[in-house]
Amino acid sequence: MEQTYAAYVDKMQQVADLRYSAAVLQWDQETYMPPRGEDARARQLATLSELSHRHFTAGDMGALLRGLTGATLDNRQGRNVSRSLEDYEREEKLPSDFVRRLSETVSGAFQSWMAARKANNFSVLAPTLDKLVSLKRQEADLKGYEGHPYNALLNDFERGATVAWLDGLFGDLIPPLKTLLDRTQAAPQVKSAFLHGHFPKDRQWAWGLDLLGRMGLDMTAARQDLSEHPFTTNFSATDVRVTTRISESDFTSMTWSCIHEGGHALYEQGLPVSEYGLPLGEPCSLSIHESQSRLWENNLGRSESFWTGLWPVLQSYFPNTFGSITTRDFYEGINRVEPSLIRTESDELTYHFHIVIRYELEKALIDGSLTTRDIPGYWADAYRKYLGVTVPDDRQGCLQDVHWSHGSFGYFPTYTLGSLYAAQLFEACTGSLPGVELRTRKGDYGPILGWLREKIHSQGRYYDSENLCRQATGAGLDPVVFLRYVGAKYTDIYKLMA
Amino acid sequence: MEQTYAAYVDKMQQVADLRYSAAVLQWDQETYMPPRGEDARARQLATLSELSHRHFTAGDMGALLRGLTGATLDNRQGRNVSRSLEDYEREEKLPSDFVRRLSETVSGAFQSWMAARKANNFSVLAPTLDKLVSLKRQEADLKGYEGHPYNALLNDFERGATVAWLDGLFGDLIPPLKTLLDRTQAAPQVKSAFLHGHFPKDRQWAWGLDLLGRMGLDMTAARQDLSEHPFTTNFSATDVRVTTRISESDFTSMTWSCIHEGGHALYEQGLPVSEYGLPLGEPCSLSIHESQSRLWENNLGRSESFWTGLWPVLQSYFPNTFGSITTRDFYEGINRVEPSLIRTESDELTYHFHIVIRYELEKALIDGSLTTRDIPGYWADAYRKYLGVTVPDDRQGCLQDVHWSHGSFGYFPTYTLGSLYAAQLFEACTGSLPGVELRTRKGDYGPILGWLREKIHSQGRYYDSENLCRQATGAGLDPVVFLRYVGAKYTDIYKLMA
Repeated sequence: MEQTYAAYVDKMQQVADLRYSAAVLQWDQETYMPPRGEDARARQLATLSELSHRHFTAGDMGALLRGLTGATLDNRQGRNVSRSLEDYEREEKLPSDFVRRLSETVSGAFQSWMAARKANNFSVLAPTLDKLVSLKRQEADLKGYEGHPYNALLNDFERGATVAWLDGLFGDLIPPLKTLLDRTQAAPQVKSAFLHGHFPKDRQWAWGLDLLGRMGLDMTAARQDLSEHPFTTNFSATDVRVTTRISESDFTSMTWSCIHEGGHALYEQGLPVSEYGLPLGEPCSLSIHESQSRLWENNLGRSESFWTGLWPVLQSYFPNTFGSITTRDFYEGINRVEPSLIRTESDELTYHFHIVIRYELEKALIDGSLTTRDIPGYWADAYRKYLGVTVPDDRQGCLQDVHWSHGSFGYFPTYTLGSLYAAQLFEACTGSLPGVELRTRKGDYGPILGWLREKIHSQGRYYDSENLCRQATGAGLDPVVFLRYVGAKYTDIYKLMA
Repeated sequence: MEQTYAAYVDKMQQVADLRYSAAVLQWDQETYMPPRGEDARARQLATLSELSHRHFTAGDMGALLRGLTGATLDNRQGRNVSRSLEDYEREEKLPSDFVRRLSETVSGAFQSWMAARKANNFSVLAPTLDKLVSLKRQEADLKGYEGHPYNALLNDFERGATVAWLDGLFGDLIPPLKTLLDRTQAAPQVKSAFLHGHFPKDRQWAWGLDLLGRMGLDMTAARQDLSEHPFTTNFSATDVRVTTRISESDFTSMTWSCIHEGGHALYEQGLPVSEYGLPLGEPCSLSIHESQSRLWENNLGRSESFWTGLWPVLQSYFPNTFGSITTRDFYEGINRVEPSLIRTESDELTYHFHIVIRYELEKALIDGSLTTRDIPGYWADAYRKYLGVTVPDDRQGCLQDVHWSHGSFGYFPTYTLGSLYAAQLFEACTGSLPGVELRTRKGDYGPILGWLREKIHSQGRYYDSENLCRQATGAGLDPVVFLRYVGAKYTDIYKLMA
């Protein structure tokens, strides 16, 4: 049985080599590739996707996995095999040439999306998006589903997630958030003008790298580059790439993108190196991935304690701007709540309205009750209804996110799930570590990172999201913790009546 | 037959996708990869090598190629098929797991070489180099050869090249070069101190990019980055990457590396896009590739005419250094002949002594008359014998080149062949274009690039080196043209008696 397990590991690692190679090509595509490199890159990525799919779903992989199922393996080995079998059974439903076609369409869609953004015109993207939506519907049919076809796509990003479950969850979340939002907007607004001065590019860059180091990112196993849209990717647990973008007039843009992507990157660096290519060497799920980025970005990275420790450091980078304000002013300013147009720049409270809008839209696109042509109108209506804002153009509206042109339908809900998990993990972590508050206020995030390493990062895909949360916090997903967290935070900042 | 040809094209393009993907990973490895990314990268590259070899040498490729041989195809199609069959018959002799092992060993050797350079100690590299030499001997045996085993390796870089032929060629070349070298060294030395002032990094970077643009490189289909060792690679004809390095105290280091790599890059950009993945979309040979880089670097890039056109531009970048000297001073200074230790910094004349030393050493390593342990001693003796210089340490001696740690044995001779071809091509080109001298002196290199595009770049691998040279110049390889070129050049610069 040991030989069979070794053969399984060997095959899985070769598939991983292909997947990670594709990730290198994608990283290059979004950071350094010259524009005319696009066509060849699209076909190179399609070939890597097709081959990694073909290798993973080949008959001998199925035979290996079935041969190992029920065999005497240790716990971790058994879990690797059962996770791989789940993946195999999902993936083998897709023909490899379908995977190739999807990859080619995605590359084309990414180009169309860039062109559409440049033209500030959704109709430039619409035809390719049409093709993509129809491929995703086909994918749902191939994979099979019960109930809503969107369930098949949700399942790719969060195993077992369904429309029924998410409808319930958003139903529990949105109304109390709306009430809290209205209360903050009725209170006097906090000041934040100091966040919009002049922040020179090279100072910001140095500050961002400094921040990543202070968070605990090992920069001998990671690097940061610029891209139009910040993202994190990795080619192994010891080669993690984050990207960011810099706005000289907006301090928040790069800083919280660094912290957010840094949170993702710490997760990748904390995965067990020895499980390269195997499920236990991979992140648990996208929602748990997002819990890591959002925990660092928000629960920690928008807390008063976090900035207390960093305050002299930040002041030394931007003495003219931050030299004369207090940590408390800063803390309030960076937590300003205000309905706005851009998801990635929104506060912790309105963020989930951006998500629910995309969730509802995706559901309707996939079940055919909405066509791509309806998107701009739907978008405008939804933003008016949920956030009371007027969408002035496509770039600030339905063209803002890259996700659809990456073929990612069913991804957005994991952002909300991630925030909910983040609140629970942060509460459990800080509650169980004596003295952590004091150490955070001194700029030492080691205890928090240590807890996350042990409870989350090192676990790989051993547990699913729900059980990982249960192991780490004693309870499964519970939106009440997040509501309690934002309730307390904004009651304090906006001096609301408790 | 059309369908069979289409199937052949399809397979070849998928193999190319894998090869180019590996090239992206290698480019990243030498430019941006964080140090701890190394292990995973080595295995990813090994998998891509193994798979591209496996796909190319699979039985159905052999059947396709044999089915197409003798079929009615147009000229270009027929040439693609016959070149692919040559490649196939050479490559199928290597088992794919041998290719994997070689790739893994090469990755390890690259690391050892970096470590050895850092330690300035050849013995750090020696054990891995031993492994590599033994694998290369095995490769020679697998591929088969007549006469010397090194012939099998030479053939990888220059089809048909043999030890007997190269011995004759160097025999014709080295003695007259030695005579010319001695005559220059007996004459008063030209001044070149102005090349060693202070040249700020960012000014040099801007100047280098400017230069590439003026050479005609399409920067929407190329980019330049920094690496420890300058190189050119490409992922298609519309995605070409050059790298360079900058020494603030030495003007020549970056400038001629830019021109050299720019010459390679122009070749890649001039290959027919429509032949992606096929022999006619690939460069003719390494010696012809090197003829392009060296033609730009030397025949054009160290000519008085070239710098006449560029002079005001160069002065505007570095007014303090070059503001007060003449183009003629500059021209003489950049052509200073002087025996030295470092190949890539040597002049056009002594360059070939560096090559013949490596050639003789490689021959001896591959036939076993020398072991890796003997290399530093051999190196010191050879540099004393050929150039009369004393090698102070390994870094300036046998550790200076990356090639062996890339597994490239048999590559160096193509540098000399490239210089010989460059002299012939440049003579034919400038001889056949009326008014080219005047346009060059005005900084317009368009006519020369146009000629190279037509005669060399667009031809791909249609001809072999010898026949391509014949088509372009009316004669095959002839070292006399190079000897005439350097003779005239240095007679003028050093005011030798004709």
